[in-house]
Amino acid sequence: MQYPKEIGQLIESFSKLPGIGNKTATRLAFFVLNMDNNDVKEFSSALTKSKEDVTFCSICGNITSRDMNPCAICSDSSRDQTTIFVVEDSQAVMAIENTNDYHGLYHVLNGVINPMQGIGPNDINMASLLSRLKNHPEVDEVIAGLDATPEGEATSMYMARLIKPSGIKMTTLARGLSMGANLDYADSITLSRAVSGRIEL
Amino acid sequence: MQYPKEIGQLIESFSKLPGIGNKTATRLAFFVLNMDNNDVKEFSSALTKSKEDVTFCSICGNITSRDMNPCAICSDSSRDQTTIFVVEDSQAVMAIENTNDYHGLYHVLNGVINPMQGIGPNDINMASLLSRLKNHPEVDEVIAGLDATPEGEATSMYMARLIKPSGIKMTTLARGLSMGANLDYADSITLSRAVSGRIEL
Repeated sequence: MQYPKEIGQLIESFSKLPGIGNKTATRLAFFVLNMDNNDVKEFSSALTKSKEDVTFCSICGNITSRDMNPCAICSDSSRDQTTIFVVEDSQAVMAIENTNDYHGLYHVLNGVINPMQGIGPNDINMASLLSRLKNHPEVDEVIAGLDATPEGEATSMYMARLIKPSGIKMTTLARGLSMGANLDYADSITLSRAVSGRIEL
Repeated sequence: MQYPKEIGQLIESFSKLPGIGNKTATRLAFFVLNMDNNDVKEFSSALTKSKEDVTFCSICGNITSRDMNPCAICSDSSRDQTTIFVVEDSQAVMAIENTNDYHGLYHVLNGVINPMQGIGPNDINMASLLSRLKNHPEVDEVIAGLDATPEGEATSMYMARLIKPSGIKMTTLARGLSMGANLDYADSITLSRAVSGRIEL
């Protein structure tokens, strides 16, 4: 016996999402059956709209609505135009924005160099960053805000090699203990970075 | 800063699903952005179709396509018409069908009596079961296949009180150790049920 084909299709669609197996997909599909009609319609149209109406900013590579390109940050002339914060993806932009601590511009690579997965510098938004720097001599600092992974660090080093010769300051995020971290349980690489980067009080 | 409204809407829709918080919803929404266009379209139409084209079987209450009512099981005259297996929901029908051990009919209550949540006998498909039994004197056994929860057991007892006077045999699923269960870790209620229901070898 099979579920009605409409449910079967919904279960299959849910199970294509990451971290959702067949059992969870079934549970979600049955939940949808009991959901408010309007909520389901909104969900359905949000799916297609997100594909149709979301695009990448022509300047920084961040996601943006098709009717708002360049994106809200690139179009905001009140932001500090001399600093570019380079991140891996749009979610990182949101994370930094939520700190309310940074008021410059961004550049979203949409990936990092990862030779194991065959991702080279040409597969990410690296060239657009370099030409952006060439066309905007007012930029005097590039912050490499990539993940603290081997790939993220390698990409930062690669970027620094290309950018530093033009005299632009290149920084990366501080490595150290997370706030609230317990020294006993910190891994040794984090700990040695925290020691070598110690700050005078 | 906010995500583009199309993404924001998709995140909100995902986070309405059970067990999916804001972070997972964001991860899923970004996954959708990178999904194959056709997969997203299928997903979107599966959502609306599941609401539009799925209904409950007019006989047994199981979910079925709108163009297949009564459902496939109720319309299958080769099945044993003398036994009705009463379950809580359509997923239970699927679970029993997957055992390939039962070939009779079903009745889906779509719930159990739960006074704490204000669900009484009139809020589930109980009346339709009783009238079904009245109209089909060939039924000689009703199996109460409800969950082994207090609510499930109370509903079984309630059903038995209504059905047994008409001379129909009323059974419930055996309680005992799950296959592969370790006696040491079985809870005491399961264990005492397993002892009182012991089987001669």
